[in-house]
Formats: sequence, structure tokens, C-alpha cells
Amino acid sequence: MSWEKNVRMVEPYVPGEQPDKAKMIKLNTNENPYGPAPGVKQAIAEFNIDKLRLYPDALITGLTQDLAEYYHLKAEQIFVGVGSDDVLALAFLTFFNSGKPILFPDITYSFYDVWAQLYRIPYQTIPLKEDFRICMADYLIENGGIVIANPNAPTGVLESVEDLEKIIVNNPNSVVIIDEAYIDFGGVSCLPLIDKYDNLLVVQTFSKSRSMAGMRIGFAMGNTKLIHYLSDAKFATNSYTMNLPALILGREAVKDVAYFKDTLGKIIKTREWTKQELKNLGFSFTDSYSNFIFATHSEYRAKDIFDSLRAKDIFVRYFAKPRIDNYLRISIGTDDEMKVLIEALAEYLKK
Amino acid sequence: MSWEKNVRMVEPYVPGEQPDKAKMIKLNTNENPYGPAPGVKQAIAEFNIDKLRLYPDALITGLTQDLAEYYHLKAEQIFVGVGSDDVLALAFLTFFNSGKPILFPDITYSFYDVWAQLYRIPYQTIPLKEDFRICMADYLIENGGIVIANPNAPTGVLESVEDLEKIIVNNPNSVVIIDEAYIDFGGVSCLPLIDKYDNLLVVQTFSKSRSMAGMRIGFAMGNTKLIHYLSDAKFATNSYTMNLPALILGREAVKDVAYFKDTLGKIIKTREWTKQELKNLGFSFTDSYSNFIFATHSEYRAKDIFDSLRAKDIFVRYFAKPRIDNYLRISIGTDDEMKVLIEALAEYLKK
Repeated sequence: MSWEKNVRMVEPYVPGEQPDKAKMIKLNTNENPYGPAPGVKQAIAEFNIDKLRLYPDALITGLTQDLAEYYHLKAEQIFVGVGSDDVLALAFLTFFNSGKPILFPDITYSFYDVWAQLYRIPYQTIPLKEDFRICMADYLIENGGIVIANPNAPTGVLESVEDLEKIIVNNPNSVVIIDEAYIDFGGVSCLPLIDKYDNLLVVQTFSKSRSMAGMRIGFAMGNTKLIHYLSDAKFATNSYTMNLPALILGREAVKDVAYFKDTLGKIIKTREWTKQELKNLGFSFTDSYSNFIFATHSEYRAKDIFDSLRAKDIFVRYFAKPRIDNYLRISIGTDDEMKVLIEALAEYLKK
Repeated sequence: MSWEKNVRMVEPYVPGEQPDKAKMIKLNTNENPYGPAPGVKQAIAEFNIDKLRLYPDALITGLTQDLAEYYHLKAEQIFVGVGSDDVLALAFLTFFNSGKPILFPDITYSFYDVWAQLYRIPYQTIPLKEDFRICMADYLIENGGIVIANPNAPTGVLESVEDLEKIIVNNPNSVVIIDEAYIDFGGVSCLPLIDKYDNLLVVQTFSKSRSMAGMRIGFAMGNTKLIHYLSDAKFATNSYTMNLPALILGREAVKDVAYFKDTLGKIIKTREWTKQELKNLGFSFTDSYSNFIFATHSEYRAKDIFDSLRAKDIFVRYFAKPRIDNYLRISIGTDDEMKVLIEALAEYLKK
């Protein structure tokens, strides 16, 4: 197999496991415990199957317009893709071609180094401070691009728009991507800065706050020039990325603002309750502004707790990685699910 | 905007226009005139909206198994992506890293050179013979990979498996991709050769023969090692490419073999009728084995015919490209649609 020497060897990203048990409590991949907006059900009931024989709208017109309306932008400032991973991967390919290393924190979304390796983009990780916060001054060195998840994953730590602006304003020669997958759970978005800085790309997703991980919709917002380049790269890869159900059902998730806000409110309330309960059990954690809590216990090893929960079909996420290998990332489920979790933890810790 | 000098500049592919008029006859992007299998309707009626909050199956297990069963393969020999464009783009990225030029015909699917340029893969186009056939000996030169559409687009010309085997067997150091988007319309697939040659990747799509252009499903078949590398590259780009509706509804298109064969039979019958009618009108064309006819007229310019049809809301495809700028690519619609087309052509030619 001598063609093998021409293969692009990669180290794939390993997504969280997707167990499918009838009575499990799944708190391991930061999904929304509530279903998508009620309008989605109506839209699927009215779905015209015969339209599937035709190519979908490559320009993603309707969904883009709805997003533009919601975020008070022009449609030309929005790019939609197959989940934020698709959008981010394309942004890496499109914007990070300087040959200089791109920068991102040592503890962050673990797809960034995978994309960098895939596209042969040099990169340098910048250690977070001891408290998992970003030192903005660390990002004022020469670079070929910057990626910051805010709130960060898996830590849940939120940086302020003012602090992030220091990075953006001081790197006019680099595209700065702020990955806001979890911003809706109480964070403040950098979105208003896109009118001020042409090098800022803000990326969000339907997978968490909009209860649509199964629909694969993510989007980027930035000035029209950035979006134009992303769009060109898309039309040089796959013209028709979004299928007809995503184009139609996705719109319902954007239109129902009341349902969206109500769901977010419930999750934030449950998160704060869970924080208190975890504290009572002796856990410590960062002040998460996301739909998960990143917690550690001074007396019990995270891996052991993870295993004990798993044995009870309660799935949380554990990363066997430097600096975070004694932490658990726990997604926020329903109140009932979190109560079962807290009971299981209490039982384990009493042993 | 000095970040602009780091942008990957590309020349995007220009897909066929997607007009959306109430009474149009759309014969320009080779869509299937018949809707998807009846089971799709049932599946969408039973679709569980609440599942959309969860990530879909990144391993695409069910759909892959159905395809494996239909094609008598192991699941490990199949890779599924977001339309065959997604699969082909990923295959270019994964397999064409030698630095040597990849080879494909001068007249073929116009995305091949776009992907090569996107990923900075050197390429060399090999002229088709005067009759639009491939000279197999032309592909025995040093290369970094080979891509052949069979039947070819936009010509519709089918090459024999025996001839293509000469290319595959003589290029053991290159991955050879046979793009069989149109193979189901009467062609003979190279699929049986994948057990014999580890460098052969066969790519097909749900967009044409399976009436699902709107669902974005394509797939590659090859030996387990090729598929493994493709899968690794996918998991280094976007773990969850296929959304839940695609995973569920796609299976129905594979399962209903009777509907599939019936639809193909109708399209082939209509194609042969259309060929005869076009011949009567003075057109000449290649002997298409696809769901389109690539036709030229000795007395009338293709562009003029194209414009005259367009004025009547009959959309066919015209390529302003060397060697083929006097041809029309006409997708096969329903019998009624083709009758209207033939009448419109008859009227125009009499002028």
C-alpha cells in the first residue's frame, strides 16, 4: 500500500461518548435537557417530503435572515455551517495561513489543536493562570491568529468583553476567533465589537442553548469581508452543506425568543442550585457561566467519582489531561436529574 | 486589514442556479423528478423532535449498516458524508498529499480543480478524446492521485469497468477515485474492484438516483484502510456531520429497493425517449448513461437555445467552457416535462 505514504495522517478529536440507555442520566456532552422550541414540531408536521428531491438553498437565505434579525445584523455578517465545529474548522483553514503560530490557551476546547494539526497550522498554547483565567498580556506576542473560547470549555470561566477587547485591538494583523458556544448561559457576548474590529469573528451554535445538537447548526458573525472569505471557502468545499430539515427547523429555534429565554432561565437556575449542593458536598469549582460545572474535590479523585457515577448510568465528562485530571465536567440537566446526581455523589462521598 | 494577506484565497465552485418558480421546468441540476421513497414520509411523521437536543450518532451506524447490506459490504468499507461533495473534498485532503500532480479529464465535474486549488494540490488535466472518451493510457504517467467521474459529467459518457481497471491496476501508488454520482442510471459500477485493489475509492450519492439532493448524503466505498483514513480525517474536522433527520430518513431511501428500481426504470425510459426526440430535431449527443443528456445542434448555438428555453422558464445547464460551449446539459425530468421541453425546442428550431 504505497499510496499510504501520501495520506494526511491526523490525530482525530475524540468526542464524549454517546451512551444510549433507557434510564441513563446524560451529563457528559453539554446538551440541553429541554427539547427544541415547540415550533419545530409544527414545522416537521408540515414538512414537504417531495422537496427533498431538490437541492437545498446553498445560500441558506431564510435561516441567515432570521439570525440577522435576532442579532440586529445584516445577513452579510453571518455565516452558517454544519455545527460550530464545521464553522471553526473552515475558519482555521481560511484565516490561519501566515505560517506563524496561532495562539490558544493550554486548557480549552480540545478540537483547536486537532484542526491546527489537520491543516498543518503551527500553534502555541498559552498556559491559563492557576485559577484558569486568561492573562491578556500573553496574547500580545507575534502570532498567525488567536482562538479563545468564552466562556472557556471545559472550565466554564467567563472573561469580560473589556479584557478580550485588549487582545482584539492589539492584534489587527490576526483574525481573532471568539468561540461563544456557551455564551447564552449568562455571559456577555463580544458580538457588539464586530462593528469596531474587522479582525473579530464570533462563533456560536444551536447545539447548546437552542436545544439542537442533533440538527448540526453553527454560525459565525463578523464584518462582511470576513464572512465573504468564509463563504468563498465553503463554496470551494461543499456548496450545499445545510440540508432542508436544518434550513426549515433551524428557523423555528431562532424565532421563538420566549421559549429560548425561558429554557435558558431554567438551566441557569438549576446550575446555581447545583453549585450550592456541590459546595455542600465539599466540591470546589470555577464560577461557571456555561451549562456545565467544572468541579474538583479535595479528598476524592475525580476519576474515581467519574467511575462510580458511570456504574449508576450517570454520565459526566472526565479528561485525563495535565492540570485538569482531577476535575469533572458536569452538564446541567433537569432539576430531577441533578437531584439524582447530587444524591449519588453524597452516597459515594460518605463511603 | 492586514490580516487579509493570511487569507486562503480560493476560486469557489459555482453551482447551477436554483430557480424557484411555481410553474418552471427545472432540468439544470440533475435532480430526480420523482420524490423520495414513501417510507421517508412515514419516518418523518414518526420523528421524535425531542431527540434533536442530543448529538446524533457520530458513527452513522444505522445508515452505514443499511448501505453495507445493500451493497454486500462490511460497514468498515463505507464512509458517509454530507453529500458526495463533502466526501470527495475530504478524500482530496486525505489522500492527495504527495506533492505530485493529480490527474483528471479536462472535461469533467468542475469541482475537482476547485478542491485541488483549495488544498493546494497540484493537478494536471488530461484532454478527453474528440468523442469525449478517456484514453486510459494517458493515466499511466507519474501522478499523486487520479479522479474519474463515471459516467462522466457533464458528458454522460460511461467507461467500462475493464478499461478503468487498467488505470487502477497500473497506479498502485496512487489512490484512484471513481466518482459514480450517476452510475445507477444504467452504468456498471467499479464497486466489485474494491476487494481487488486497495487504492480504489468509489464515491456515490443520494442526490440523484435516490431522490434526496435536499438531504445531503453521499458515501464512499473502499477497503477498510482507505475508509479508516477518511474517517480519521472526518473526526479531525467535524465529528457530527450528519444530522438526525439525515440519519433516519436516509435509511428509508436505501431500504425501499423496489421504489428505487422503479424510479430508475422510469427515468431511463424517459431518457431514451428524449434521445430519440432530440435526434429527430437534429441534435447529436453522447450516449448518456446518466440522468441527463449532453446535446449539441449543428445549426443552432447552444447558448441561444439555452436563452430561449430560459425565457419559457425551462431551465437547462450551459457551460461557457472550452470544447463544450456549444452543448446543453439537459436533466431528465418526468415524461410530461420532457414533452414540454421537446415542444419548446421544436418551436425554437423552426424559427
